[in-house]
Amino acid sequence: MSARALTAASDFFAPRADIDGLLQEFLTEKARTATVPGQAALALLLREFSDGGKRFRPLLCVAGWHAAGGQGDPAGAVRLAASIELAHACALIHDDIMDAADSRRGRATVHRQLARNHKLPSMADQFGISGAILVGDLALVWSDELLHTTPMPDAHRAAVLRCVDLARSELIAGQHLDLLVTGDLDVSVETTLTVLRYKTAKYTVERPLQVGAALAGAGHQVMDACSAYGVPLGEAFQLRDDVLGVFGDPDRTGKSRLDDLREGKCTSLIAHALRAAEPVQARRLRALIGNPRLGEHEAAEARDILTRTGARAAVEQMIEERYRQALDALAAAPFPPGVVHTLETVAEATVHRTA
Amino acid sequence: MSARALTAASDFFAPRADIDGLLQEFLTEKARTATVPGQAALALLLREFSDGGKRFRPLLCVAGWHAAGGQGDPAGAVRLAASIELAHACALIHDDIMDAADSRRGRATVHRQLARNHKLPSMADQFGISGAILVGDLALVWSDELLHTTPMPDAHRAAVLRCVDLARSELIAGQHLDLLVTGDLDVSVETTLTVLRYKTAKYTVERPLQVGAALAGAGHQVMDACSAYGVPLGEAFQLRDDVLGVFGDPDRTGKSRLDDLREGKCTSLIAHALRAAEPVQARRLRALIGNPRLGEHEAAEARDILTRTGARAAVEQMIEERYRQALDALAAAPFPPGVVHTLETVAEATVHRTA
Repeated sequence: MSARALTAASDFFAPRADIDGLLQEFLTEKARTATVPGQAALALLLREFSDGGKRFRPLLCVAGWHAAGGQGDPAGAVRLAASIELAHACALIHDDIMDAADSRRGRATVHRQLARNHKLPSMADQFGISGAILVGDLALVWSDELLHTTPMPDAHRAAVLRCVDLARSELIAGQHLDLLVTGDLDVSVETTLTVLRYKTAKYTVERPLQVGAALAGAGHQVMDACSAYGVPLGEAFQLRDDVLGVFGDPDRTGKSRLDDLREGKCTSLIAHALRAAEPVQARRLRALIGNPRLGEHEAAEARDILTRTGARAAVEQMIEERYRQALDALAAAPFPPGVVHTLETVAEATVHRTA
Repeated sequence: MSARALTAASDFFAPRADIDGLLQEFLTEKARTATVPGQAALALLLREFSDGGKRFRPLLCVAGWHAAGGQGDPAGAVRLAASIELAHACALIHDDIMDAADSRRGRATVHRQLARNHKLPSMADQFGISGAILVGDLALVWSDELLHTTPMPDAHRAAVLRCVDLARSELIAGQHLDLLVTGDLDVSVETTLTVLRYKTAKYTVERPLQVGAALAGAGHQVMDACSAYGVPLGEAFQLRDDVLGVFGDPDRTGKSRLDDLREGKCTSLIAHALRAAEPVQARRLRALIGNPRLGEHEAAEARDILTRTGARAAVEQMIEERYRQALDALAAAPFPPGVVHTLETVAEATVHRTA
């Protein structure tokens, strides 16, 4: 990394300590001032849950504030960023229930933790799920509290709230479409792209940037530039995840290369391969994908088909196209030069990562 | 009912058509402008779900606005009221998942509807639950959108938002405590009262009144009067529900008198009885309550024990005390006389109902 890129990266990550500190402080205070038996435990559980994660969305929120010319003390942007992170906790906790996931961020998922701590074994699983639905709801409600107590110029408030509300409803629409097509390998590449646009690209990149930008009073040009950069970059981010999930080096990603294949989710990579495959390849791929006991040998076979059908190359090309689009948008964006450079570095790191 | 009481009741219910109209219009527009496949169906599902219910909370919100001197066009209070109703839809949809309930408002619950419509039978139940978690989340997010687009004087906004956030977090704390003690018949009367204070009294009466009052710029005296009236009345409301659930006339309530006993929830009525019972009565009551196949004969036996132990009379006395407290608070409240009379009528109807 060049010295300039290092500075840009350090600018991007600089607010992380403040965001983390605010979240921990907010949730500690919730535990301290709890009035209902059991309430403090919920706050502490959310505090533990929030102690981890990449903070990509909240950091983009602060970057968006700078992109729209925000200067001086970024306390308002940091508070909004913390609000975004708590709403994301809701999404993850509810998602883990839907996926019946056992672990998250190196710990047991919330529904598993709650089940484990329940005193009546016969009711533990049901209690875990019910409790985790409530903990997710609580994260969203407290996200709102952080949002509602962020000092904002009256003239900017409507735009900030509109972006927040939109981000959340788009995520839900994307998750719902994802649920609808789960188990269906005949899904079109277009549908897989719609899922990742709503579930990831807009929610993870475009909207957090815009929320921060709106706080700084961004006009249409800045808001549009956030979209022009954020949507393709967000799509590339998820496409890279899909490739790493199958082709990544587990020593670098820290994740199994088998889970995505075993889960049988029809990513763009798979949808591409099934469309381009010879009948015999397609039959084999369908037999491999979604097999919960798929082993290393079969995974290698699936990777081979994904490569031979040209699906891997096609997705790499889609990533590259979107990366270029994001950089072009950045070159034309009315952002301060320092922010442009930061967001270039973010794009490069997002797209060309190996972990 | 006297002519004066009739006028008061009609004042209370008058905004209902506007609240219903706004909700239907808002959700129809969401379906019309949906951009993601499957999103319109979620909006229509919520529209159908919202077409029913007593609207007690939203009507209290508008009443609170009048209580604080709100005059002229109540459009803002109506919009806030609709927001409260949509957040309540989230609570009900998520609650129905937690209770594994089959029906709500005369229709299949949301998770059952979604399961029924899924094309892959093997995944239908899981899809129903996952989808209903998302539909509940969406109701909360759209409740926020209505809240965030309610025109409010800048000076009143912080108080409105604080009340809304508090109402939601208190409900969750109450639901969580309820979950924690479910299946435990050794719960104290005090704990059952804490559950109903947070899960019902504050959430259903106190906070909706205060949200509306805050919109009209209520000062401390009006806000405190809303609490002084709302908390005891809300407690009496739930205690009446508990009594009707066991002693009510099914022809009038439209509900089975067996469900509450079969479910085995430890209401104040049950907690009272177990505390006052002779050992032989307590053993019998514990054997009856929570039996999912409890019949009419056993229910009559349970009712007999609840009466003989004095539990029924004790709860009736608790209701009456709280009713008196609410009326005393109203007599001292700095509300316009018309609102005082409306809220007296509401209290009377809430506490002395047979359905």
